[in-house]
Amino acid sequence: MRETNGWVRTVALLPPSLKDNTSDAGRLTGELKKRLHADGVRVDLDLLKTLPDLLRRWNYRARCVLFRDRNLWQVVGISDPDAVRPATGVAIDLGTSRVVLRLVDLATQKVLGETAFNNPQIAIGPDVLARIHHTDKAGGLAQLNGLIVTGLNEAIKTVTNQAGLDREDVYLLTVAGNTTMSHLFMGLDPHWIIREPYIPVVNRPDPMAASDLGLQVNPLARVLVFPNIGSYFGGDLIAGILHAGLHTSDDTAILVDVGTNAEVVLGNSQWLIACAGAAGPALEGGVTRMGMMAGPGVIDRITIDPVTYKIEVHTIDDQPPKGICGSGLIDLAAQLYLAGMIDLRGRLVPAACGASLKKREGIPYLIIVPAHQSGTGEDLGISQIDLDSLIRSKAAMYTILETLTASVGMRPEDLETFCVAGTFGSFIQPESAITIGMLPDLPRDRYRSLGNSSLGGATRVLCSVEALDELDRIRDRITYLELNVNQDFMNRFSAAKFIPHTNTGLFPSIRAVRP
Amino acid sequence: MRETNGWVRTVALLPPSLKDNTSDAGRLTGELKKRLHADGVRVDLDLLKTLPDLLRRWNYRARCVLFRDRNLWQVVGISDPDAVRPATGVAIDLGTSRVVLRLVDLATQKVLGETAFNNPQIAIGPDVLARIHHTDKAGGLAQLNGLIVTGLNEAIKTVTNQAGLDREDVYLLTVAGNTTMSHLFMGLDPHWIIREPYIPVVNRPDPMAASDLGLQVNPLARVLVFPNIGSYFGGDLIAGILHAGLHTSDDTAILVDVGTNAEVVLGNSQWLIACAGAAGPALEGGVTRMGMMAGPGVIDRITIDPVTYKIEVHTIDDQPPKGICGSGLIDLAAQLYLAGMIDLRGRLVPAACGASLKKREGIPYLIIVPAHQSGTGEDLGISQIDLDSLIRSKAAMYTILETLTASVGMRPEDLETFCVAGTFGSFIQPESAITIGMLPDLPRDRYRSLGNSSLGGATRVLCSVEALDELDRIRDRITYLELNVNQDFMNRFSAAKFIPHTNTGLFPSIRAVRP
Repeated sequence: MRETNGWVRTVALLPPSLKDNTSDAGRLTGELKKRLHADGVRVDLDLLKTLPDLLRRWNYRARCVLFRDRNLWQVVGISDPDAVRPATGVAIDLGTSRVVLRLVDLATQKVLGETAFNNPQIAIGPDVLARIHHTDKAGGLAQLNGLIVTGLNEAIKTVTNQAGLDREDVYLLTVAGNTTMSHLFMGLDPHWIIREPYIPVVNRPDPMAASDLGLQVNPLARVLVFPNIGSYFGGDLIAGILHAGLHTSDDTAILVDVGTNAEVVLGNSQWLIACAGAAGPALEGGVTRMGMMAGPGVIDRITIDPVTYKIEVHTIDDQPPKGICGSGLIDLAAQLYLAGMIDLRGRLVPAACGASLKKREGIPYLIIVPAHQSGTGEDLGISQIDLDSLIRSKAAMYTILETLTASVGMRPEDLETFCVAGTFGSFIQPESAITIGMLPDLPRDRYRSLGNSSLGGATRVLCSVEALDELDRIRDRITYLELNVNQDFMNRFSAAKFIPHTNTGLFPSIRAVRP
Repeated sequence: MRETNGWVRTVALLPPSLKDNTSDAGRLTGELKKRLHADGVRVDLDLLKTLPDLLRRWNYRARCVLFRDRNLWQVVGISDPDAVRPATGVAIDLGTSRVVLRLVDLATQKVLGETAFNNPQIAIGPDVLARIHHTDKAGGLAQLNGLIVTGLNEAIKTVTNQAGLDREDVYLLTVAGNTTMSHLFMGLDPHWIIREPYIPVVNRPDPMAASDLGLQVNPLARVLVFPNIGSYFGGDLIAGILHAGLHTSDDTAILVDVGTNAEVVLGNSQWLIACAGAAGPALEGGVTRMGMMAGPGVIDRITIDPVTYKIEVHTIDDQPPKGICGSGLIDLAAQLYLAGMIDLRGRLVPAACGASLKKREGIPYLIIVPAHQSGTGEDLGISQIDLDSLIRSKAAMYTILETLTASVGMRPEDLETFCVAGTFGSFIQPESAITIGMLPDLPRDRYRSLGNSSLGGATRVLCSVEALDELDRIRDRITYLELNVNQDFMNRFSAAKFIPHTNTGLFPSIRAVRP
């Protein structure tokens, strides 16, 4: 078996003799200490109970799964070195809306499977805020905690069974989520997260026993919940930085994660500066009348013929359209702008929109997919209110980028690498985001879509001992920039509320297309 | 409250603000890290669940009970800094026969109470060997473990209640016992301890959660089981060294713990050398026909008039005599020898013993207390077999002392300080032990009775953070001398089988009394 520098180590010990009557545990930890350069190696009591028999059965050879807390290592599993069953870990992206699990062979770092499910806490409240308020009710926290733990246990069962394994084969779990999701998962009170001065219970959770968290995996399994920097800067983003390698790059790069909050990190191997700001809810599913999360039948790309104004939509899995996701919405706004169907303030232009422009409850409303073509049997459209909201969001995003880069004496257009994280990042077309002035007008090849960077970062820690240290280094090195919504910020924001921007000189490639 | 350099620290934290929005846990551990110069301070998940409320209720002041594993500290309790209830610890001497508990205020180091009980495992087997054999039966280990844990839980309840406290007020426990007792307490298989090459499961148990051991104390309480050096050199003796301060003294001293095994440590602040050898069972209760453990009615001192041969006995609590303990037996042998009732080989001398000398089953037998004066209604006496066994034991003891001192180029009579540990040490009369040649003929003021040194050592670790480090230093510094029972040893042993010794020059003060 290939064994890299990960959490699994196979050791061959000298059998005991009258000349060396060290205990079984001491024999094992002594060898591991040497190999790992560890201050100490702990062995759980439950493991000690079986250790003498196991070591003798395997002729003093053993495959050990390890984990670490600072420089104190912990044996979290011991198994037959000739076993064919892999020792596995599960990386978890603990999203507010969606939870994704990835099963990894800890010895070979091979991905053995993935599964995902909608966060069952959605039944209590769609967003972080609603869920935190729910915890103020009696039993509310236990209920939310129970929902996510139950969901995870089912998903762990699914993903292990699909790989032909049992959940007892899972020895390590890494969990990256925002600060509130992490708190709810650990059963910690999130009450103060949203109350000034916004204090989480914990920033850097110590590695925990999976059993203490109610997870049904190997009884000795350990769980690492990613650290956060504060209430609004969670472990998901730390995982993103780790995944993007922002902290190891010589060039200054930026990482953007867009959701209800725009979370942005700028930095390189020398420094990291982060901020998070409300980007407005326009880009999340469920906000516009037809908005929804990415899924089959959801519009993810749109083109509009600037001559005929004909709208062509592409849906995920080519199903009949039933809604639009955030990236589709940005595509739509960009195409509407390029076709002249909205003006530089984002207002629907009646002359260009023609008969598709209706009014609903007195608000202008543009039909994108008529009822007879939609998957819902109803018109799919976008209202002026939705567009206004989108404009505010994109303006907030750009203003945050401008403010953050300015804080280190840079401009957005100086960035060498621009990473876009999250499901949103997987679907977004940089061209469209640039067109509406949400992202800066960089050469397109500087944009990198990271995919699920939370999951990526969580996976890295499962695969590499060093990645665990990097987590602390990232946390220690980040400066958090408190967004000061002052006159200067508001001026920038107002300027960014135009498409692409009041200062079109910032977007030369868009000015070239639609001057 | 007086707070010394122990495991309790009261902290006053800066309340959170927008300028310092560190998490509640980070605020606490940050301050503790600074105060303790710690690599890290862990906080249990259960504690995190209540931490935000507690810190706000106490205005960000808190009394913390801490413990440590290497340089990683652990908060094991947090309470109101103005509370009057003390945070306590329990030191436990986990003896094969008797278990003693001492309740200590962790902040002031004041002793709040003591209790003791007979080890309920006696019902399974009187000694270590019988109990180890019992663990080979199905359920045997669980049964023995259950007996001692239940016994401890009752005793903890007793000792806390007597001090007006609850068992939830107990946050730390230190347990010093021999290697087998420690294993049975932790539920670890002692099978290999008595099988060549004599391998314990663990030498240096990591600090454990009391709940994992089944102890009913504060749910977050931690337990330190004292380390052992090997199968025959247990944590009780490490505790004894700590208590005696052998490892910190500039003068070379010796520590002797006598039971079935004679455990001996010789050393000073520079080096420690230890050995353990079978001293024979003669000195433990239950071996001679009238032998028993110290208790009311047990003969602990004897005088014999060398002219009239009249035997006067003193019993514990002045109850009618019903048996004799180890130290009483040594007294008896010394008095018999001084009165000429036994010869220098330990043989009963008919001319001197007179009518009190009987035969039982063909074996000479000396009546010490006739039936009508005894508390049992039967004669109490000693047989030639008992005396032979005692002579072998005392010879073994002296030979071990000679061999150990010789290994470092010393003689027994060079010792500056001679510590005698254990219940045995509390009752033994050095004069008598010297008279029969069991202990060397040192000036009597060099002898120190340590009392219960296991309990003393266990208490030290409850009272001092430094003592925990000393444990590791003792363990690391000890050289274990394997007693090589070769011709040289046998020659010394044969010479020591005389009273006081073949070479009476070694015992000048005895030669002066009975040339």
